[in-house]
Formats: sequence, C-alpha cells, structure tokens
Amino acid sequence: MNRLRTQVAIVGAGPAGLLLSHLLHQQGVESVVLERRSRQYVEQRVRAGLLEHGSVQVLRDAGLAGRLDRQALHHDGLELRVDGQRHRLNVTRLAGCSTYVYGQQELVKDLIAAREEAGGQIWFEVDDVVPELSHDGPSTVRCTLDGQPTEISCDFVAGCDGFHGVTRPSIPEGHLTTYDRTYPSAWLGVLAAAPPASEELVYAVHERGFALASMRSPEVSRLYLQVEEGDSVDNWPDDRIWKELHARLSVTGEAELTEGPILEKSVVALRSFVAEPMQHGPLFLAGDAAHIVPPTAAKGLNLAVEDVTVLSEAFHAWYSDGDRALLDGYSDRRLPSIWEAEEFSDWMAGLLHRPPEGDRYGARLQRARLDAVVNSPASGRQFAERYVGLARQYAGGERSGQRTP
Amino acid sequence: MNRLRTQVAIVGAGPAGLLLSHLLHQQGVESVVLERRSRQYVEQRVRAGLLEHGSVQVLRDAGLAGRLDRQALHHDGLELRVDGQRHRLNVTRLAGCSTYVYGQQELVKDLIAAREEAGGQIWFEVDDVVPELSHDGPSTVRCTLDGQPTEISCDFVAGCDGFHGVTRPSIPEGHLTTYDRTYPSAWLGVLAAAPPASEELVYAVHERGFALASMRSPEVSRLYLQVEEGDSVDNWPDDRIWKELHARLSVTGEAELTEGPILEKSVVALRSFVAEPMQHGPLFLAGDAAHIVPPTAAKGLNLAVEDVTVLSEAFHAWYSDGDRALLDGYSDRRLPSIWEAEEFSDWMAGLLHRPPEGDRYGARLQRARLDAVVNSPASGRQFAERYVGLARQYAGGERSGQRTP
Repeated sequence: MNRLRTQVAIVGAGPAGLLLSHLLHQQGVESVVLERRSRQYVEQRVRAGLLEHGSVQVLRDAGLAGRLDRQALHHDGLELRVDGQRHRLNVTRLAGCSTYVYGQQELVKDLIAAREEAGGQIWFEVDDVVPELSHDGPSTVRCTLDGQPTEISCDFVAGCDGFHGVTRPSIPEGHLTTYDRTYPSAWLGVLAAAPPASEELVYAVHERGFALASMRSPEVSRLYLQVEEGDSVDNWPDDRIWKELHARLSVTGEAELTEGPILEKSVVALRSFVAEPMQHGPLFLAGDAAHIVPPTAAKGLNLAVEDVTVLSEAFHAWYSDGDRALLDGYSDRRLPSIWEAEEFSDWMAGLLHRPPEGDRYGARLQRARLDAVVNSPASGRQFAERYVGLARQYAGGERSGQRTP
Repeated sequence: MNRLRTQVAIVGAGPAGLLLSHLLHQQGVESVVLERRSRQYVEQRVRAGLLEHGSVQVLRDAGLAGRLDRQALHHDGLELRVDGQRHRLNVTRLAGCSTYVYGQQELVKDLIAAREEAGGQIWFEVDDVVPELSHDGPSTVRCTLDGQPTEISCDFVAGCDGFHGVTRPSIPEGHLTTYDRTYPSAWLGVLAAAPPASEELVYAVHERGFALASMRSPEVSRLYLQVEEGDSVDNWPDDRIWKELHARLSVTGEAELTEGPILEKSVVALRSFVAEPMQHGPLFLAGDAAHIVPPTAAKGLNLAVEDVTVLSEAFHAWYSDGDRALLDGYSDRRLPSIWEAEEFSDWMAGLLHRPPEGDRYGARLQRARLDAVVNSPASGRQFAERYVGLARQYAGGERSGQRTP
C-alpha cells in the first residue's frame, strides 16, 4: 500500500483539473492530479475549441498562453447564415472583446507541459479512484496506481472528472439537488482536413437543420450537423455528411464548401445539467463534474476555466490567511454565472435548431429572434455580451453592484 | 334597401377602426365605421390600458391626446417583484422613453367624440355585416342598419373588427396562412375601487403564480392573477381574489395591498395568433383582426395603433398620388414588427408565469432570465426597448438600414 499526502487531491486531468493544479502551484498550494486515461488519450481527445477573451486572459496571467497566442485564431465576429443569407455580427464592436479558436486538446498539451516543467504531479491511468470525504480531519482518496493500492491523504478533493466522473456520486444522497434537460437533437461532429468555410465561425440556420462551420486551424475544419437524438455515425458515411453540409451551408452565388478527408466523426448528445451546491464538505466540483451545457454556445470549457480560477483563489485565501469564507462561498459565487451560461446555451439551441415538426408558430418566433439579433442594436449587444461571456459578470448582481435596491 | 358610397368601409369601432377613420379624415379620405355593438358598450368595455410612448405620440400628432395628456399616468419604469423582493427597472433611463396608463375605453370615448365633432360617420348596432370583396371594381359591404338592409359601395374594406370579427373569415380559403399558440394559463382580471399597490406597474413572479398590479387612476386598481386555463370567475369570490393577491404581491415588512370593492372581474384567455398576409385584394386587416398576443406585454392596443398609422399613410399615398406601393407593401411592412411583439409577449409569458409543474430546470432558467433583466445593463436595455416598443423599429431590418450585408 502506497501512502501519500497532499493539500488538494484533484481528480481528472482535463482542462479544469490541470489548470487548477497549475494555479494552486503558483499560489504555493500542493496538489496531485489523478487521471483515469492515458496521457496520449487526453492529449488527443477532440472536444471544445472556442475560448472566450476572459478565459484567454486567465491563461495569459498564469503564463500558459505562449503557444496559444502564437497559434490560436482570434475572431472579431461570427456569421449567422439564415437560409443561405449571410449576416455578420461584429462581436468585438458590440461587446468590446471577442473569442479565440484553439482546440481543447492543444490547451491540455500546454497545461501538461507546464505542470511537468514545474515538477507537478500528474498521474495517468489511475484506476479505482474512491474519494472518502471527512468533515473533521484529512480526507482520503483511494486508487490503484501501477497495480498498487494507493491512499492519498489530503485536506480537500477537487472533482474535475467530468459529468461521468466518480467525485459527484461520492456525495451522500440528499445533499445535492440536480437539474437537467435533454434535447430532441444531437450534433454530428466532424474533423476534416479541409480549409474552413469562412475565416470566422458560421452558424447556419436552415430548414434541413442547423450546421456549424468552425475550424481548428487554417487547414483543418471542425463541422457540426444537427441530427436526431440517438442518431449514430454508422448512418453518416462521408459522402452523406458532405452532401448535407453543402445543403445547409450553401450561399447563392458563392463557392461551395471545400471537401477533404474526414479525420474523425462522432455524435455529441445535447444535455443540460446542474448540481447544486457545487461543494460538499472537503469536496469542490468544477467544470463538467458540476454542470454541463449543450455545445450550442461553446460555454463548457470557459465555465471550467472560470470555476477553477475562483476555486484557486478560495484555496489561496484558506492556506495563506486561514480564511474559509471564499471556500464556503464558492458555490454561491459560481452558480449565477453557471445559470446565465445554461440559459444562453438553451436559448441558442432554440435560436439555431430546426424547430419541432408542426410548431409553425414557434418557427416564426425563431425567425423574429434571429431578426432581432441581426437588426436591433440592443439585442445585438446583449447577444454579443453573452456570446463572449461578459454577461456572466453581472449574474447574481451582488458582485457587480448593479442590483437595484 | 339603403345604398351608400364611401372610400374606405371600416368594420369595427374599437381603437383601430376609430383611429383609422380619424387619420383618414385628416388626410382627406372618406370612411364609414360599422360597429355591431352599442356606443355605450364600446365606451365601457374594459380592455387594455398601457400605451407606449410611440402610440401616445401618434395620438398627439393627430390632435387626439388632449384629455389623455391631462389624465393619463406617465410611468418612468416598472417593478419586477420576485418572491417578495422588489427590483425597479428605470425604463426611461434604459430606453429613452416609457409608457402611459390610460384605459382603452377612455381612448375609445375620446376617439368617438373626435369623430363626432368632425362629422364622421360611425354606425353602432349594425347587424349582419358581410363584406363582398371585388378585385376589379368597387367592393360592397352589406349590413342591416336600423332594421333596414343596407349596401355600402367602397374602394376598400378595413377589417378592424377584432379576432372574432367577420372580415378575416371573408377572405377565401387558401389565401391566408395562420399561426397560433395557446397557453396553459389564463389571467383573472379585476377592476377594484382601491388605491394602486404602487405608483408604477408591479409584475410579481411568485411560486403561487404571476400577479400584475396595475391601475386605471389613483383611485382604481387593475389587478391580474395567473390562473389555470379554463378557470372561471365563479371559482373566484372576492375574498379569495384578495387573499391570493396579498400572497403573491406581499413584500416583507411592507404594508399590505389596500382592498376595495371589486367593480368587475373576468377571465382573459391567453392566445397568440397571426394571419399572413394582413391583406387580400381590397381588404386590409388591422389590430386584433390580424393578430393577437397574450396580455403579458400589453402590446395589443399598441400594435393596433401602429397598424392603422401605417395603413392610413398607404391609403393617403393611393388617394393623393395614385401610388399603390404602400398599400401593396402594407403586410410586408407590418409583419416583422408584429412578430417582434409576438416574440416579446411569448417571452414575457415565460418570464412571468409559474413554470409547468415538474420542469425544475426550466424554473431555474426563468430565474436566470429575471436575474439578467435586473442585473445586466445590456439585458436591461434590450428589455426596456422591447417593453416600450422601440425594438420594433429595427424588426425586418430594411427600414432601419441596420441589416448587415
């Protein structure tokens, strides 16, 4: 039996866990990161790819944005393409800042490299992780490491192990309230060695269904198609994918999308979920372990970055000043922002997806919403502030001093 | 058989028909207004009571706002009361203008008086109205006036006879597309001889359901309770109404609502409906005859004022210059604004009403929306512009020049 001791045991080596470990290290707090998968797996896993300005700023402040600032694609806006009509939204002009395209797996590589360089402890292929939470003394995380039963004694556990992780279920029944919503659609995600359809993201609303033309680099496209919930990649041979992308993304009189080899395809289920509170005794949940959003507004990665930024400040206050107020207030501080992002992601699903068959009135309301985003300055500004994440700073009111008495 | 001739036969002496007749008269166009009900009935009918700044401006420009400017209550804002917490929105600061409270029946009295003074023809208690539309020559409206069969020969028919009127159904099958939505709630509306709960309107979101505290004058309150669809006034004796109003409108530590004799009560069904196009040959629909909204945003009367303002300009262009472009374009010009109001009214229903039983995730999204309206400046401004109707000027894009190429 291996026995180890750390201050914060972090479960999960995704962006949340890795960034938290890095931020804690910079604040003089020790941590160990435990990851079920291999290093190669997490460095290759294709996930999110859109970083809000605020997330990039966190990475810059932490000295983690060297490669990102060289390679990420900075976008000042986006295109809403409605039945083949192009409408560009200048997000930087409307909101004062904008977004960056940088694959999540690239960020994970950068974070792992930075932790390695600083001598950080990240253990991959760790099995049988079981958090044993104690409310009056050190907690224990049991696991199997290189075939050896291992016990990590720690002050706190950070649950950064995603929606299907083990930390959230370790909270005893009755202490969490969960909220969730499922959607009648899913997204078929495709990575293709083909130049992007446009320099910026194209959100295409079409009677055949929604399509999103994004990219990972000037040579690699990331493309999505709205499909039926429960659909499978087996139903989507490459030629059907391209045919459907052409149909939904076409603009009269303009060149077709350029095709290329499809490198990867998968179906992403759409689901919303929030667990409240985001903490229980010594356990603090961050990122997908606490909440998920449909990918419609690309908020998941950005919420994770924000969660661990707030959480690292709270740990810092505790270890440097013995002040537990920020730790105790972690969930209350985060939840209004989480719900703003949940609401925006859900609203975006309604804005973009083909409405349910037969809801003709609803289809017209969708057109009215698109009309407002494109044509009303006030609606455009509100949309832009939500899209780049600035709207979250006002959520809950207290912090911003905006709440009317 | 009486035989008469006019330029525009207007069916319905509500605000739409009466205002249209007045505006046409000012532009030198002749009209006759036909109303099924008695003068007393339409002058007493309790309906809408909130006028947007733009509607008041139309009435002022037409010389119809003398009494309104003396008696209407001008509001700079409103209160969102969420589970007993007060949040004031300063609408004038956010949007640059605001709203006026003036009972629809008072406006109807002013309009009838103005038409009488100008020698206008308004016929009350007209039965059996049947429009016979001709696409190549004068149309005919048949009716029974004082027991006499009567034929009005006219160039155009204006359908201002409300949702249940005869003009819309006179359009032959296949020429209209209709869109509608029903709601699981209704509103119980109460007129009470009691001082208003507040100087401004109070929109109260409460776990027992929505309540609205409005007024008609400093001595008369207009109060609404969200009830189940299909509920009846028979289930609502006065003491139950007051008890429920107290529960939903109470603010901790503040005086209770003052009770008073209930002068009138009725259940208002909530429904959305739009007919497209708003015209067919010589027939032009305006106000509730073409579209209805739930009362959640008080848009119905304001849309009617806007419809007939646009329609009177179109008739003027035709009669003064022989230019039919505005008449032909009436529906296309109005529909984007109508849909903006439909969308806002529907969104307001979601913002204010108790969410469907069991949709706990949806209930949290509702709180996030309320949070944003109260705390985010961009969301507050968007809300205010929609509430005062300014947002409609951008709908459709072409007129505003805002549409991005």
